[in-house]
Amino acid sequence: MKALVYRGPRDIAYESMKDPELHDDRDAIIKVDKCAICGSDLHIYHGETFSEDTGYCVGHEAVGEVVEAGRGVRQLKTGDKVMISAAVGCGQCRSCLAGIVNRCENNAAGCYGLSAKLQGCQAEFVRVPAADFNAQKIPDGITADQALMMTDALATAWFGARNADIQRGATVAVVGLGPIGLLAAEAAFIMGASRVFGIDLVEGRRAMGRAFGMETPDPATAREYISEATKGRMCDSVIEAVGHSATIRASLGLAGRRATVSVVGVNQDRSFDFPMSKAFGMGLTFRIGTCSVPQEWSELIPLVQSGRIKPERYISHTLPLSDGKHAYDIFDRRVDGAMKMVFDMGL
Amino acid sequence: MKALVYRGPRDIAYESMKDPELHDDRDAIIKVDKCAICGSDLHIYHGETFSEDTGYCVGHEAVGEVVEAGRGVRQLKTGDKVMISAAVGCGQCRSCLAGIVNRCENNAAGCYGLSAKLQGCQAEFVRVPAADFNAQKIPDGITADQALMMTDALATAWFGARNADIQRGATVAVVGLGPIGLLAAEAAFIMGASRVFGIDLVEGRRAMGRAFGMETPDPATAREYISEATKGRMCDSVIEAVGHSATIRASLGLAGRRATVSVVGVNQDRSFDFPMSKAFGMGLTFRIGTCSVPQEWSELIPLVQSGRIKPERYISHTLPLSDGKHAYDIFDRRVDGAMKMVFDMGL
Amino acid sequence: MKALVYRGPRDIAYESMKDPELHDDRDAIIKVDKCAICGSDLHIYHGETFSEDTGYCVGHEAVGEVVEAGRGVRQLKTGDKVMISAAVGCGQCRSCLAGIVNRCENNAAGCYGLSAKLQGCQAEFVRVPAADFNAQKIPDGITADQALMMTDALATAWFGARNADIQRGATVAVVGLGPIGLLAAEAAFIMGASRVFGIDLVEGRRAMGRAFGMETPDPATAREYISEATKGRMCDSVIEAVGHSATIRASLGLAGRRATVSVVGVNQDRSFDFPMSKAFGMGLTFRIGTCSVPQEWSELIPLVQSGRIKPERYISHTLPLSDGKHAYDIFDRRVDGAMKMVFDMGL
Amino acid sequence: MKALVYRGPRDIAYESMKDPELHDDRDAIIKVDKCAICGSDLHIYHGETFSEDTGYCVGHEAVGEVVEAGRGVRQLKTGDKVMISAAVGCGQCRSCLAGIVNRCENNAAGCYGLSAKLQGCQAEFVRVPAADFNAQKIPDGITADQALMMTDALATAWFGARNADIQRGATVAVVGLGPIGLLAAEAAFIMGASRVFGIDLVEGRRAMGRAFGMETPDPATAREYISEATKGRMCDSVIEAVGHSATIRASLGLAGRRATVSVVGVNQDRSFDFPMSKAFGMGLTFRIGTCSVPQEWSELIPLVQSGRIKPERYISHTLPLSDGKHAYDIFDRRVDGAMKMVFDMGL
Repeated sequence: MKALVYRGPRDIAYESMKDPELHDDRDAIIKVDKCAICGSDLHIYHGETFSEDTGYCVGHEAVGEVVEAGRGVRQLKTGDKVMISAAVGCGQCRSCLAGIVNRCENNAAGCYGLSAKLQGCQAEFVRVPAADFNAQKIPDGITADQALMMTDALATAWFGARNADIQRGATVAVVGLGPIGLLAAEAAFIMGASRVFGIDLVEGRRAMGRAFGMETPDPATAREYISEATKGRMCDSVIEAVGHSATIRASLGLAGRRATVSVVGVNQDRSFDFPMSKAFGMGLTFRIGTCSVPQEWSELIPLVQSGRIKPERYISHTLPLSDGKHAYDIFDRRVDGAMKMVFDMGL
Repeated sequence: MKALVYRGPRDIAYESMKDPELHDDRDAIIKVDKCAICGSDLHIYHGETFSEDTGYCVGHEAVGEVVEAGRGVRQLKTGDKVMISAAVGCGQCRSCLAGIVNRCENNAAGCYGLSAKLQGCQAEFVRVPAADFNAQKIPDGITADQALMMTDALATAWFGARNADIQRGATVAVVGLGPIGLLAAEAAFIMGASRVFGIDLVEGRRAMGRAFGMETPDPATAREYISEATKGRMCDSVIEAVGHSATIRASLGLAGRRATVSVVGVNQDRSFDFPMSKAFGMGLTFRIGTCSVPQEWSELIPLVQSGRIKPERYISHTLPLSDGKHAYDIFDRRVDGAMKMVFDMGL
Repeated sequence: MKALVYRGPRDIAYESMKDPELHDDRDAIIKVDKCAICGSDLHIYHGETFSEDTGYCVGHEAVGEVVEAGRGVRQLKTGDKVMISAAVGCGQCRSCLAGIVNRCENNAAGCYGLSAKLQGCQAEFVRVPAADFNAQKIPDGITADQALMMTDALATAWFGARNADIQRGATVAVVGLGPIGLLAAEAAFIMGASRVFGIDLVEGRRAMGRAFGMETPDPATAREYISEATKGRMCDSVIEAVGHSATIRASLGLAGRRATVSVVGVNQDRSFDFPMSKAFGMGLTFRIGTCSVPQEWSELIPLVQSGRIKPERYISHTLPLSDGKHAYDIFDRRVDGAMKMVFDMGL
Repeated sequence: MKALVYRGPRDIAYESMKDPELHDDRDAIIKVDKCAICGSDLHIYHGETFSEDTGYCVGHEAVGEVVEAGRGVRQLKTGDKVMISAAVGCGQCRSCLAGIVNRCENNAAGCYGLSAKLQGCQAEFVRVPAADFNAQKIPDGITADQALMMTDALATAWFGARNADIQRGATVAVVGLGPIGLLAAEAAFIMGASRVFGIDLVEGRRAMGRAFGMETPDPATAREYISEATKGRMCDSVIEAVGHSATIRASLGLAGRRATVSVVGVNQDRSFDFPMSKAFGMGLTFRIGTCSVPQEWSELIPLVQSGRIKPERYISHTLPLSDGKHAYDIFDRRVDGAMKMVFDMGL
């Protein structure tokens, strides 16, 4: 099959690879219809990899069709159109059954496309372990593009907003308006925020936020704008959706008394200079972590079905997989209006 | 002063009354700017009164200006424009301080205009006990009409929606689309509902609901519509905003497994034939009660300020107080598009 | 095999029955080590059955050993000692995966021993559907007697206490001090109650409650006692653990303002005369339903392991299965100190 | 009057001072019956002060009798025995009314004995601002010693445990077993913890913890002990009750996946080297801040009244105020079994 393969920093190659096979009778092989690039894939692209491997297929966002299912697979069958959770668990332990796959007690918690151990899904086919648990039939009334957004971006945005303890009437700031930041801002409104401020250097992204009610001050003076807007109280909840220490620092600066700062951007920094006495004085909650994707689906599915969230509008490009190198390049440089980059295997 | 006075069933008179005076140095006298009729005032209008009295001033929704304040009043001063909470508490006990005035430990929990004990506010002046607690300066950015809606209707609607345990993504039904029902439906969306069904016999009210996204099936076949829309699961949360046993019964019929039914309509029926074994089988939560108005304000104020809720759009009529008799009549008959009836004392 | 079989009102027979067989490859056959009689089995014993059937094996509380497992069973294997959830679900739908088996979307929600459809477990062997989901290996550090109590009684008691919205510092009443009532009272303390009042006619049961800190007034004057103890405020949470309309009525009478009344006793009454206007005045939450047993296990397992709850102390009798008729009789008459009646298959 | 006065590092003097006077008609003057030293007073004692002042009276934990009340004081009257909240607010803004005095919108949030601005209560008399709000009559059934513990230590411990998101059945660690740490551990059990591990270098303190069920491993190998006890999962909730970066670091090391670390120890370090990528991987919640004392009272009062918490047992010494210098010395050196040091003004 054809796949996008990590060869080294800034070197994503479109090449042939061996087709995936079942390893376990609970596995399924999915023929990918659409897959996408996540902001966190840029960490790999920049050489900030999560393993020592090279030569593995990248990507962890995909929807497709079941073409082979182990005989232990009970819920899915050949021909089913499915969305694949970016977060993988064993699906059998009490943590997985409770929906918290990243607490998997069998240490099966993982993600596609981070190493050769679990190949990525920017490919024609992908093997899904514990397929009944880690994939789900696309529910009625949800398009392939919507389902693709649910495999990671929308779920992570929703999780990040939940982690921000958004109270009804709250004032919220979102730092970083890529697809996850914008979806987190939409989530903040659905969770009852009264005002949501968005901070990003790219005007096109800010404009997308204003379209659904965000306030997007000039990033150079955003802190002052928010201070004035809130009469100095600053924000009740702040969501960091970038993944850098500098933006975490900026997020802390937007937080008011008893606020929660939620970090969803993937952060690989070993340390961070945390302002402890200031945090003590203000009474801060700081929360960071990754999303157990299927745990978010029960709330998200009806919201997407009813049209309250339209995650597909953050898809900026749909390209054939053979354009992978180009797609990574413009996404990395944030040019050409690049937001969510989708590969359509039928193109 | 002039006031609307309860003389007997369907007999609300516009007449002269003695001006109110301070009873306690924590009282304030408010010159009413605007006041309104609440659906629960119709109970009195129909002779289903809350006391044996007649000849008292009715009404419990008003905004106005402080014209006299006892020397124990600290937060408010003459000239302040205030909104008056329909729910009254002592403002000093731990329950009141915790915001739950209807658990007032000094037995001061009450409401204006239900008896001669605490005169109503459909009048030129009204005495407010514990004024620092039971009234609040109208916050910046909130109009008199908005503030008037917050004195009861919006707060009660919000409380009713909170009582319905609305989960994000939930399917909700609202039975009765007067101002409280429609505001509860708006609240349901702000609390994250994916779909909100509205049931009312009056098409004009249903149209108001559709304008913000409700689904308003033909009331004759609403149950079937909802059953089909939810694939038989029915609703997660149901809000009854009428106040009759028949509508409570209908609400129970719309509830699905593990649902919550929240009753906000004022109910004076001594008993109700509760379907116990059915409730046991489905796992029901049934919740009923009155709203501690100021407890809801902290969430509502920023939502009104930011424009996420626009309660004033349910004001259908603004009239002089001298038209009181007429106002009650058309409100009672639900004709002429009657929704929230407001008296403007300046007219 | 030998089993206890429902023949008609007050006629439970110890007789031979066909051994159970696998119906589906996700089923398992469990050789019962111990099983128990539940208070709700008395409904059947009294002829208030849940189906039209007779001649079926009764009972829904058991622990035992896996002796045969369908090839779709992945978590359990022959020889495993397991506890069997009294509540049965498909284990595959999103409701089951979310732990709420009694919302099972495949309509597999059920219970053993209510009809011929799913035979009971007061028998030498029992078939467990979706065994990976509906049974669990007995965790380390938990005895067979403890596990037996977790299959229904402790889980239901815990659920009933959760349903009562017990706040830290709350005043709680429990009506009915059988095993479930007493365990619910223990749960109330673990959930932070400051005082727990227990109402039961049997002094021996009240004494058991006093042993862990309950207050057990004379049932004839319990309401007055509680009123005085709470200075008229009555209880914040009330748990009904009997299953009769009269005890539900008594429970409502013990509830204070903004209280929650939680009914866990199995109730088969079609209707109940609910005091609607009183409930409106006080702001009541009324909650009723059955427990999704495994949903409670994640909290209960560590509490039993650490010894904070010792459910086995409510086992009053351990008998051979052949004494079934006698066991039902003394349990029904509440004589001889009968609390939890256990059958040990090895006796 | 006589008072303990901060003169400089390790120099607390017992000397004469001007009696306090009313500044505002909502103030009251309290004749102190008992006052206590808090662990955070040692920061001042070590010269890590919260202001540039010297010569002010220290201390923020006291109970006493109202001897003078401004005419705006409504709840309290001369002769009332009161407990004084260590946390002070205006008592009028919506944050104070909502119980969160440290979000006081009038910037009145403060504490006694940190500067000359608000004199401390290790004195014969103390002025209490907004006395109706910042002090409360000692409830029936609560002794002066118990009330004294509620003015800060017990409330802060309770808050710290609440901040740790303790779930029922949770595994909890407490780092630092002074009065606050031990009370937080008791709180953890009341909140439903299954196991609570305590870490402290002083064996006498560990013994106090074991008395109510804590497990107190050898501090040198505590991490290994906890790892083994939890099969490597570590703790769900960790409470730091010391106030040093080293103990915060140790606390983070005891946290498992999706854990919450709650810091209650007063921390004056400007920065802290936060392990960001590790926190991201594990999904951490980190929470720090000070307690709005009266907010905790509603839960604590009934728990103390009913005897579920007996905070007075952490009082190790009761001395006359003239022994202040000595008391600070032995408390600082943690010798002589020093836990809570109380001054009884009647001695």
